[in-house]
Amino acid sequence: MSAHIYKKIEIVGSSESSIEDAVNNAVTKAAESVRNIRWVEVVETRCHVENQKIAYWQVAVKIGFTLDEN
Amino acid sequence: MSAHIYKKIEIVGSSESSIEDAVNNAVTKAAESVRNIRWVEVVETRCHVENQKIAYWQVAVKIGFTLDEN
Amino acid sequence: MSAHIYKKIEIVGSSESSIEDAVNNAVTKAAESVRNIRWVEVVETRCHVENQKIAYWQVAVKIGFTLDEN
Amino acid sequence: MSAHIYKKIEIVGSSESSIEDAVNNAVTKAAESVRNIRWVEVVETRCHVENQKIAYWQVAVKIGFTLDEN
Amino acid sequence: MSAHIYKKIEIVGSSESSIEDAVNNAVTKAAESVRNIRWVEVVETRCHVENQKIAYWQVAVKIGFTLDEN
Amino acid sequence: MSAHIYKKIEIVGSSESSIEDAVNNAVTKAAESVRNIRWVEVVETRCHVENQKIAYWQVAVKIGFTLDEN
Amino acid sequence: MSAHIYKKIEIVGSSESSIEDAVNNAVTKAAESVRNIRWVEVVETRCHVENQKIAYWQVAVKIGFTLDEN
Amino acid sequence: MSAHIYKKIEIVGSSESSIEDAVNNAVTKAAESVRNIRWVEVVETRCHVENQKIAYWQVAVKIGFTLDEN
Amino acid sequence: MSAHIYKKIEIVGSSESSIEDAVNNAVTKAAESVRNIRWVEVVETRCHVENQKIAYWQVAVKIGFTLDEN
Amino acid sequence: MSAHIYKKIEIVGSSESSIEDAVNNAVTKAAESVRNIRWVEVVETRCHVENQKIAYWQVAVKIGFTLDEN
Amino acid sequence: MSAHIYKKIEIVGSSESSIEDAVNNAVTKAAESVRNIRWVEVVETRCHVENQKIAYWQVAVKIGFTLDEN
Amino acid sequence: MSAHIYKKIEIVGSSESSIEDAVNNAVTKAAESVRNIRWVEVVETRCHVENQKIAYWQVAVKIGFTLDEN
Repeated sequence: MSAHIYKKIEIVGSSESSIEDAVNNAVTKAAESVRNIRWVEVVETRCHVENQKIAYWQVAVKIGFTLDEN
Repeated sequence: MSAHIYKKIEIVGSSESSIEDAVNNAVTKAAESVRNIRWVEVVETRCHVENQKIAYWQVAVKIGFTLDEN
Repeated sequence: MSAHIYKKIEIVGSSESSIEDAVNNAVTKAAESVRNIRWVEVVETRCHVENQKIAYWQVAVKIGFTLDEN
Repeated sequence: MSAHIYKKIEIVGSSESSIEDAVNNAVTKAAESVRNIRWVEVVETRCHVENQKIAYWQVAVKIGFTLDEN
Repeated sequence: MSAHIYKKIEIVGSSESSIEDAVNNAVTKAAESVRNIRWVEVVETRCHVENQKIAYWQVAVKIGFTLDEN
Repeated sequence: MSAHIYKKIEIVGSSESSIEDAVNNAVTKAAESVRNIRWVEVVETRCHVENQKIAYWQVAVKIGFTLDEN
Repeated sequence: MSAHIYKKIEIVGSSESSIEDAVNNAVTKAAESVRNIRWVEVVETRCHVENQKIAYWQVAVKIGFTLDEN
Repeated sequence: MSAHIYKKIEIVGSSESSIEDAVNNAVTKAAESVRNIRWVEVVETRCHVENQKIAYWQVAVKIGFTLDEN
Repeated sequence: MSAHIYKKIEIVGSSESSIEDAVNNAVTKAAESVRNIRWVEVVETRCHVENQKIAYWQVAVKIGFTLDEN
Repeated sequence: MSAHIYKKIEIVGSSESSIEDAVNNAVTKAAESVRNIRWVEVVETRCHVENQKIAYWQVAVKIGFTLDEN
Repeated sequence: MSAHIYKKIEIVGSSESSIEDAVNNAVTKAAESVRNIRWVEVVETRCHVENQKIAYWQVAVKIGFTLDEN
Repeated sequence: MSAHIYKKIEIVGSSESSIEDAVNNAVTKAAESVRNIRWVEVVETRCHVENQKIAYWQVAVKIGFTLDEN
């Protein structure tokens, strides 16, 4: 029950619009290959700049998911 | 005047919509019990995930307020 | 070609509306005096509070730009 | 429901026997004055030494509890 | 011989009894899918609390294992 | 006896004259509401500047005090 | 186009000759199992010592690669 | 008004007498080339030692000043 | 009396059974060569793994002892 | 004499060959615009990867130089 | 000549009066047993509190000295 | 056998040629006074600059060696 085992993977999501959307894109991509995602930790926020404007947000996150459910 | 004494407390605000809204909720809650809030420091950003989607944002903040006004 | 030299400067942008807008304001201001901005690293997020509400977001960023283009 | 507001307080628990027992003592003490404790983060582990032996363990923890339940 | 290549993965182990047992559970689970585990680095220790008591320990570890043995 | 439980609170003291005086002011203020202060940890030192001169020192400290004495 | 999703994995490369060679060995090994490597972040540098001399360099790196290209 | 843009520069001030005086010297020097200094963050304190005595204090500070006032 | 001078040394203790025992072994070893040990700070916890099981705990500690007693 | 004032700037140097060469390129570039460079602090080491090989090293450094010599 | 080898030791100095005096006491004590001290790095500042007042300052420093002069 | 006790000392090695050589010089010097060196952790890399060129590399390392062999 309560005593799960989790794995964390580190993903960098991108978005042209916002930090939240970049994190959302990271979670959506991760959800293609891992099941049972439980939480996200934001670890680094950067922007790529083109023509002196922010082109997209790049947010590195750790994604935690349960390992022990079959 | 200028030489105030401040206290910092650590609150975790949540929101289904955005990081800013989670911080806002933390400040609104803190304002119920402390007066003279002066600043907020964002110290940790996490998300709770349900059904492979971000369910809500959890943002830990330190809230600084003046102690010396009567 | 690929082996550029970059400089980083540290700017604090402000905005009444969002973290993203504060970063955007920092980049816009920096773009007045440096050319060839390439990336932004978010290093600190704070809020100024007035009347128990968030008055504006203050986001410290490091802005990297190319030094070697003439 | 899901979008709670939490507060964190920092307590240093002590024990002559183990790190776990020191954390347990911190939680027990905190439970006397706050309700709805949800989690503990261990932030620092030290020992006090007397007569060249470990006299007791001192473990600093952050204790998170729900603010919004009435 | 000596100059191996290693990979590190991050696992969160849980236990109702102790920090050591939580780490042990993380290693046991990791050993189901990776061979040649060499070391563990403890990176974060937390507790889940229920009914004002520690329900289980959650310990995040980095687990290093050899990649180059066939 | 030796196995006390402590709480830490975070205070920012100010002074026009020195870092030590700012810490002293933080302790004096804290002593109005908590008893049995045992130690101080200096965590951040800043200055407020007016008219191109240091107007006052702002020193954030964690103050540890005993919880278990009645 | 620009808004990729990346994954980071953590590898420890070794070399008897230099830090650069250890990083190179880590990248070469990673390239056997992941495609589209984009960058490397050096996170820790250690040496293994035998007979009072440096036997080999061990460099922990995070390796970022694109997830979204098919 | 409230939503300023600031720049931070890093200066190391020295003094034979005290930490405060070293910070003061850093601010005085910075004030020769930048206007509208608002705050100082102390980031590192070191001493240079000669003849087994402290010869002078070296304090690295970040100095924040307003960019947007004309 | 109160204003002692201390030295800190960094020791890594090992144990097959627990973190506490590894720290204890570090203190016991240090006590062979230094007198007047006052405190221990735990700075890093690792495990050595053999045959896919934890073989022993390795805990790096800083040990503080009084220098000024004769 | 001894009590100088220094400024630090942050530069990212690149090189196809080594970390040392990347730092050297950063110093050479900085020397075009600042005089009296005294020291360098390496703060971050990264690599850009192309075609699954390290294309060049990118090393972020802080460069300290004397401000007070005329 | 210039390419010395140094050792760093960690000392905690105390003083009833100031941070500077505590560092000075640490250097004076270290100078009894090591020669050729070159620099000091302040790593931690704490106070011991008695009767709700600062009884003395405790400053942890790293002291660097030349190893290679005979 | 496996459960050794280690001590770590902190040395700064210098070299005019490379980071690796500076670390090597630190190990060679340490080997004059301690036996059974097992590993090195690189903790800080700096350069001394003269005449606008890197004069030598200064690399701070922690050196771990076995205490328990007689």
